[in-house]
Amino acid sequence: MTGDANALLDEIAGIGALPGDGGYARPVFSPAERELRDWFVGHATARGLAVETDRNGIIWAWWDVPGGAREGAILTGSHLDSVPGGGNFDGPLGVASALAAVDVLRGRGFTPGRPLAIAVFPEEEGSRFGVACLGSRLITGAIDPEKVRALTDAASTTFAEAAAAAGLDPSGIGPDPERLAQIAAFVELHVEQGRGLVDLGQPVALAGAIIAHGRWRVRIEGRGDHAGATRMADRSDPVVVAAETIRALRAHTLVVDGARGTVGRVDVVPGGTNVIASSATLSLDVRHRDEATVRRIVDEVTAATERAAASEGCTVTVTEQSFSPTVDFDAALRAELQAVLPDAPTLDTGAGHDAGVLAASAPSGMLFVRNPTGASHTPAETAERADVDAGVEALARVLEHLLTHDSSTRP
Amino acid sequence: MTGDANALLDEIAGIGALPGDGGYARPVFSPAERELRDWFVGHATARGLAVETDRNGIIWAWWDVPGGAREGAILTGSHLDSVPGGGNFDGPLGVASALAAVDVLRGRGFTPGRPLAIAVFPEEEGSRFGVACLGSRLITGAIDPEKVRALTDAASTTFAEAAAAAGLDPSGIGPDPERLAQIAAFVELHVEQGRGLVDLGQPVALAGAIIAHGRWRVRIEGRGDHAGATRMADRSDPVVVAAETIRALRAHTLVVDGARGTVGRVDVVPGGTNVIASSATLSLDVRHRDEATVRRIVDEVTAATERAAASEGCTVTVTEQSFSPTVDFDAALRAELQAVLPDAPTLDTGAGHDAGVLAASAPSGMLFVRNPTGASHTPAETAERADVDAGVEALARVLEHLLTHDSSTRP
Repeated sequence: MTGDANALLDEIAGIGALPGDGGYARPVFSPAERELRDWFVGHATARGLAVETDRNGIIWAWWDVPGGAREGAILTGSHLDSVPGGGNFDGPLGVASALAAVDVLRGRGFTPGRPLAIAVFPEEEGSRFGVACLGSRLITGAIDPEKVRALTDAASTTFAEAAAAAGLDPSGIGPDPERLAQIAAFVELHVEQGRGLVDLGQPVALAGAIIAHGRWRVRIEGRGDHAGATRMADRSDPVVVAAETIRALRAHTLVVDGARGTVGRVDVVPGGTNVIASSATLSLDVRHRDEATVRRIVDEVTAATERAAASEGCTVTVTEQSFSPTVDFDAALRAELQAVLPDAPTLDTGAGHDAGVLAASAPSGMLFVRNPTGASHTPAETAERADVDAGVEALARVLEHLLTHDSSTRP
Repeated sequence: MTGDANALLDEIAGIGALPGDGGYARPVFSPAERELRDWFVGHATARGLAVETDRNGIIWAWWDVPGGAREGAILTGSHLDSVPGGGNFDGPLGVASALAAVDVLRGRGFTPGRPLAIAVFPEEEGSRFGVACLGSRLITGAIDPEKVRALTDAASTTFAEAAAAAGLDPSGIGPDPERLAQIAAFVELHVEQGRGLVDLGQPVALAGAIIAHGRWRVRIEGRGDHAGATRMADRSDPVVVAAETIRALRAHTLVVDGARGTVGRVDVVPGGTNVIASSATLSLDVRHRDEATVRRIVDEVTAATERAAASEGCTVTVTEQSFSPTVDFDAALRAELQAVLPDAPTLDTGAGHDAGVLAASAPSGMLFVRNPTGASHTPAETAERADVDAGVEALARVLEHLLTHDSSTRP
């Protein structure tokens, strides 16, 4: 029991690995993700933790207190699924560090005054069924289980079918307030998904907030035509308008400190080299700590797109697909974590996390571990072995504190 | 025998029609295109024309002269295949007008002094096997038959397999100089694919040239990353560079009279809403009467893309995929056609045609019929019934002239 999260991550480095340098494919309920879940259950069981999978497919591994009461529990953990082409740290680092932190505490002869649980949340990435943090949304009631059962993946398999194939009864998914009521606090450790810690020269940070995040679809309709025979003046080319959308998003995001704006999808129809397109559909992903700023950027991009479309004879439809308000992590819990980790800076994050969803039901916080490349959702994502160890130590100290001390703000 | 091309087009209006207002799908050797070929053979046979299909799959319908010699023949015709979602005029108008022109000439009691042939060329659009004017390229030796046999469609069916399934021996395709040597002149009638005749208020034009045409692939590589967690300053986003490519092409094309530039394909990888792309690949389609101008525009777009890529930390590769020089239609034949049709203006075209390929082997020319929408390769392509009649009349007069008069420049 050396508290070695690096060794744990090394064990799973081959599971779901894509050929070449392609990273990982570990979609929820896939053979790779199920192998990872079995690996976790094996390690938890070997440590004498009491393992159960709840009706939403969340695995819980309990370090119980004498008597077995689970009220006032401290929760840690993360997820094991990955985006296609992601790395080995996004998710697994939090799970491996939780196991390693238990090892560290036991190595020090620590005896918890409250129960500790390590959770593994399914479909955090939303890369199979399109909704991120699906497990935490289900348990907290943030999403309708009927809607979840009908979600489909790229092969048109429903969530209900995939869950059943993985041994989970899809009729049982949904809010679980009794279980949530057991949680006194949740701390999720995660690899950082940017270069904040690199710039600050620190290995571990606390999360301040998950910044507001919206997704929009911009559909531009023009007139399909012959690329050779149609004069420039006679065109209504939606691709030309799409270029203005992309430029406007970059321009309006760059001038706002902390804002992030991305066009990651471009669908041009019909998509022939010698055919002027009839339509172009873009995704907008916009984030900022201030919700009104997010909406203002989208308004500005919409206006720029509409001006370009009017000039080109095209029409534009902008549809909001989702909007997640800013999640400020629990201030009292943050203060406690800061007292335990006085050197750790506080960073906001632009990425969603299960801790952001759980925050609506229980005091929640996060630790971030430095990522030298700052890259995320690519195989370039990484963490130094020494920083992984520093993350485990930080998590162990945080858990030791939370498992020992009561707080007026926690149940 | 009323010379009614409209009635002929009406007969085939249901063949290969897509649901709703979706136009036609008539790829070469498909059931729809074969039904159209049978329809043509039926009409040619009913008119007493001698029908044969050559070893390249080109159908020839001969109005022979006494004695049956075929040297010094005048050729007309067009194609029956369509792009996906194309209209009923691009191709079929030239075939139907040829049949109708024969009816007109016979109705006037005309007796040709030379043989007349109506040809139907396969795979003019290149929409199934990727090479436009495939039939005319094969017969003229402009393409290697070995390469053609191996061409594949979207279902990975080879040209050889599809040809064999349609009853054509694929081992026999290739240059046919004996047959080409019979052709004294080729005149193809085609619906106009732009608004030139609309602006000039004329129903029929002569073709001056097919303008030079090149296709390039622009591949921009950046760094895939997380759309929420990655700060704007840390990004290498190829989509932002692609927007500059699209803008530069539009800007550099607009300032050159008669130039045409199109980005019709945009492939963004991996294409996730919350993922900064790792690569973007664009098609460039650039055309102008002057070949050097085409290359200069592409050089300017390449330079603009490289500047944007350098600023974004991306790399760019521009690959030429094809380059077709300007085809000036035979000047002596054009002068003859102009004498027969003194009111017809001369228009250059940005679209490729079998007549442009045949021009390397025999004096060739074209007639264009007004298209009120100017649209092409879409269901919006059209021609007024009166203009279709005017096209038949113009073609009949041209054929009457060519079948009657010798020329020092024709064999």
